[in-house]
Amino acid sequence: MKYLLKLSYLGKNYSGYQKQKNGNSIQAELECAMKKIIGRAVQTIASGRTDAGVSAICQVVSFELESLPKNLDKRLNLILPEDIRVLGIETAEDGFHARFSAKKKTYLYNFYISNVNIPFLDSFALRVNENLDIEKIEKEIESLIGEHDFSAFCASGSSAESKVREIYSARILKNDLFYSLEITGNGFLYNMVRIIMGTLIEIGYGKLKNLKEVIDSKNRARAGKTVSGVGLVLKSVEY
Amino acid sequence: MKYLLKLSYLGKNYSGYQKQKNGNSIQAELECAMKKIIGRAVQTIASGRTDAGVSAICQVVSFELESLPKNLDKRLNLILPEDIRVLGIETAEDGFHARFSAKKKTYLYNFYISNVNIPFLDSFALRVNENLDIEKIEKEIESLIGEHDFSAFCASGSSAESKVREIYSARILKNDLFYSLEITGNGFLYNMVRIIMGTLIEIGYGKLKNLKEVIDSKNRARAGKTVSGVGLVLKSVEY
Repeated sequence: MKYLLKLSYLGKNYSGYQKQKNGNSIQAELECAMKKIIGRAVQTIASGRTDAGVSAICQVVSFELESLPKNLDKRLNLILPEDIRVLGIETAEDGFHARFSAKKKTYLYNFYISNVNIPFLDSFALRVNENLDIEKIEKEIESLIGEHDFSAFCASGSSAESKVREIYSARILKNDLFYSLEITGNGFLYNMVRIIMGTLIEIGYGKLKNLKEVIDSKNRARAGKTVSGVGLVLKSVEY
Repeated sequence: MKYLLKLSYLGKNYSGYQKQKNGNSIQAELECAMKKIIGRAVQTIASGRTDAGVSAICQVVSFELESLPKNLDKRLNLILPEDIRVLGIETAEDGFHARFSAKKKTYLYNFYISNVNIPFLDSFALRVNENLDIEKIEKEIESLIGEHDFSAFCASGSSAESKVREIYSARILKNDLFYSLEITGNGFLYNMVRIIMGTLIEIGYGKLKNLKEVIDSKNRARAGKTVSGVGLVLKSVEY
């Protein structure tokens, strides 16, 4: 049987989602806890990897088992470190694949405006200076919507064959303390959200003017820098 | 001359704002950094102490000096730990006293609704269960507004002579990921915001019905429990 597991984690203490030779990972913690309960190794597939320091409100992981042990979610939470929590496990359709079946992903990138660091916000949001003009960002952000070749927003080293992705929505959310870029698309290239955020910040500072031109250039050198992973959160995956 | 210093900190790694025999404090870090620059001990007075784990977006501290060393704010930030930042220093009026001159204080208490912990939110917000009814809280919260004897919301051990305080506003803010109780008053008793939040949560769960009756009882046993300091932030102090 195929199963779908919803996973929430704080990325701060991990080298990333994916298992790796050096450094701890969310996947290794999950598979290690699964092995302790199931008695043998179980292969898990996530909707996508998240980088070092990146958190998830709700990541989705699929795996196969003959049958589901009773209370597997609660038993996993007893073994897993406190910064990784299983939100729930449900039966999935036969052909379900956490990565290839994903239709929409939503990321948040949190930032706040201050010329001095606000330590309370530093653990989950990026600081930007007070000369940032949010209205300029909100005006240009609409160029992201639709199907585009996002080569300008892809880190070198990406193995993606096609750099075409569709963005369904992109907007700036504001609350009492900080802002978030909320972006939903059918998929994201390596470091794409962080490069988009870096580019939007340069637009807000007036260093860059036209986001459409940056997209059309397909040239990584025309976009902004890759900002820190600290503000990035995978919010949800839809199937 | 009297000076007013604006201070921002993450409370997680401290036993509280106030200097104490055992345990590190924000005040000790600030006074130690001042001493290194000024060359002698300088007494500082804060608008009020914050408890263990409680953060501040903007705490206010007053002190006296013959004159202000150039770039004192930047020099303090070079010495202070990264989780304590000086936002700015300005000249204050002669009679200024960070505690006694304070007219209004605003606190935030952050919480989120989920039956399982969301690790990304756990470092700055309290988890409450999904059967919490926010509308019930929003209906009852208005009873807090105005001048009341808040004895029911004061921890034992308080040295306050009068338990009468005036609350100017109290409301629930909502963003994409969590809620905050935002409360502004002329002053707060020991643990008052945490007991108010604990009481509002019991109202949201339907365990308590009438907030006005709890206030009028002046009886600590009638109010909810003191919730964790993790969700509490001093947002601002007005003079």
